[in-house]
Amino acid sequence: MKKISISQRAANTPASAIRKLVPLADDAKKRGIKVYHVNIGNPDLPTPEPILRSIKEFKEPTLEYAPSSGMFSAIKGWQKFYRDKGCNFDLNDIIVTSGGSEGLIFAFFAIADPQDELIVFEPFYTSYAIIAAMGNIKLKPVRTYVKDGFHLPKREVIEKAITGKTRGIVACNPNNPTGTMYTADEVKMLADIALKHNLFIISDETYQEIVFDGKKVLPFSSFKKLHPQLIITDSVSKRFNSCGARVGCVASKNKEVMQVALRFAQSRLSVATVEQLALVPMLENHKAYLEKLKKTYQSRRDTVVRELKKIPGVTAVKPEGAFYIIPKLPIDDSDKFAAFLLTSFSDKKETVMVAPATGFYATKGLGKNEIRIAYVLEEKKLERAMELLGLAIKKYNKI
Amino acid sequence: MKKISISQRAANTPASAIRKLVPLADDAKKRGIKVYHVNIGNPDLPTPEPILRSIKEFKEPTLEYAPSSGMFSAIKGWQKFYRDKGCNFDLNDIIVTSGGSEGLIFAFFAIADPQDELIVFEPFYTSYAIIAAMGNIKLKPVRTYVKDGFHLPKREVIEKAITGKTRGIVACNPNNPTGTMYTADEVKMLADIALKHNLFIISDETYQEIVFDGKKVLPFSSFKKLHPQLIITDSVSKRFNSCGARVGCVASKNKEVMQVALRFAQSRLSVATVEQLALVPMLENHKAYLEKLKKTYQSRRDTVVRELKKIPGVTAVKPEGAFYIIPKLPIDDSDKFAAFLLTSFSDKKETVMVAPATGFYATKGLGKNEIRIAYVLEEKKLERAMELLGLAIKKYNKI
Repeated sequence: MKKISISQRAANTPASAIRKLVPLADDAKKRGIKVYHVNIGNPDLPTPEPILRSIKEFKEPTLEYAPSSGMFSAIKGWQKFYRDKGCNFDLNDIIVTSGGSEGLIFAFFAIADPQDELIVFEPFYTSYAIIAAMGNIKLKPVRTYVKDGFHLPKREVIEKAITGKTRGIVACNPNNPTGTMYTADEVKMLADIALKHNLFIISDETYQEIVFDGKKVLPFSSFKKLHPQLIITDSVSKRFNSCGARVGCVASKNKEVMQVALRFAQSRLSVATVEQLALVPMLENHKAYLEKLKKTYQSRRDTVVRELKKIPGVTAVKPEGAFYIIPKLPIDDSDKFAAFLLTSFSDKKETVMVAPATGFYATKGLGKNEIRIAYVLEEKKLERAMELLGLAIKKYNKI
Repeated sequence: MKKISISQRAANTPASAIRKLVPLADDAKKRGIKVYHVNIGNPDLPTPEPILRSIKEFKEPTLEYAPSSGMFSAIKGWQKFYRDKGCNFDLNDIIVTSGGSEGLIFAFFAIADPQDELIVFEPFYTSYAIIAAMGNIKLKPVRTYVKDGFHLPKREVIEKAITGKTRGIVACNPNNPTGTMYTADEVKMLADIALKHNLFIISDETYQEIVFDGKKVLPFSSFKKLHPQLIITDSVSKRFNSCGARVGCVASKNKEVMQVALRFAQSRLSVATVEQLALVPMLENHKAYLEKLKKTYQSRRDTVVRELKKIPGVTAVKPEGAFYIIPKLPIDDSDKFAAFLLTSFSDKKETVMVAPATGFYATKGLGKNEIRIAYVLEEKKLERAMELLGLAIKKYNKI
């Protein structure tokens, strides 16, 4: 008879490195310290007015289940969203999900059995590791480097990671946590690899429009031949400043994948009704909004990179998109350093909270001299946050 | 090299028997047929005014992520909800989930590895089967019968189903899909079995207050010794007529379980912010509301049972709670019959949509002469729906 205990898969599920620091931040605040939060991608920008208005105008007398695949208007909204990007999905090709995360669960579980492998580019979004652990799926990390601006390695390096168990490649473009936008050549290389080796591409497009300097992401959907192997996971969270709405989608022209995604979706009945409706106007019409959003983040990126370069010993390659950067710092242990910022450092009663990059690597020992910064603060605050970072590094290295 | 295909776990995931009928219902409506829906537990009753008001009054400028464990006020709300039932949870013992379904995913995955087994009482809620398939968990069905009002079998029968792989027992009280309320003796028996065999109890308490004739559920939490082995999954959907809010919780005094549930929760970041806030007033104060709700459903149950008994050849034992009943009908194939109702039957341009009970059984061949009725319509409509059912059985058996 087994003892009462949690499952092995639960024991293997990594804890979020960022969330572990939260109690330390709470303590600092209790001591009267002001904390600049660049540790998490929770944008400070206001949610677009049409979304908030639609929430306030919800008029149904009963808050009913939506269909498991999503409300008709929300599916139509995503359909238009992709059509505007040149990708024509049927209504059956799209399922509305509870944020991008649920789409990732559906995609991972739809294609990978226990012990199957998915290739990810390290550092990568922590949720990939948690979802994989829940499904007993193995992530096969292919490393990218600060010095290359976290761009992809050569084709041979990626192909070397493919085994008989590999079922797909997960690509987030532009990337969380690095801010890197993969070039057209890089996207084409991944599409080629997937076609040659019969792999799925899980394309996490959460940040896709947030790219700078007039650049544009080449979407995987532009490769017609890849369509049966392409699964898009997406979210309104970042592009429409609606993280708390929990609306995303999973989309694919592979009918078999969408059929099983729908079965998974039926197990949780539906996504919150009010928010599905609220997001429709932005899904249908967002050009001007996103143009402005890009400018805001581009200017913030320039500020962060400029200020980071002032700190001795820091390596930071200008990222092309999203709102993240992973600089290399002259420190020995980013977990210790991130805790130090909250427990043992302050300047004029202020400090900064960052995410140690170790949480974005699967390979033990990597990320120890890197942190992730999310530039989700106004520029004046970002300047001060980077100043605090520089002061803290000096103090940390003197101990 | 493997072909591009879905995973085996996805292929093994059962399709929802109810949802397959939806296109047939849509077709019937297009032909001008009025369809009485007793096929799904989507209550027709209005959502309580404090919930709708709170949604309209959401005032934050940015719709931010909530904490992964839930908003402080929502956790406090659930804490008070359980305290009022005599169960004292710490704040850390509760995680707010996206409906009851997400709580079930967290609970199943927290305790069971691939090939591990969970005991369920057949017929059971379809989502259990989907979630188990996603996690490669085996459900071990223990059968209950119409003639017994779907009450539990003898202790020996349940204990016979336990193997070295069994990790827990899933119990929904009162039950979806049967409406059966397990008696104090039955609850105690399950608690005893769990204690003796070191099994978890996953207690699905979605319908717990909806019980009739002055009865009251004995909660598993009343057994102190069971606390380290008890995981509650819960939802506001049915008791507060808020299915579309997608707010539930998972709660346990087993710290290890809650720690891994929190890790799972971190992968999906948070539950919709607006609805978490909106449900707080009802979680804290609902006595009068639930009293009225119970009366409404009790009266509907009486109507349905009375009308069912008028149909020749029907066996229906009066259920004690929830808003479901599974009668035995004089038919050969409930799937065929449910389709027949939508494609080949109508009376005065009206028909009724039911759920074939086959979808609630894991054992092939069971449920073929049973259907599930959800009494989520006004009584006049329920009377007519049962009349239509009687007429349809007559016609179906003449073909």
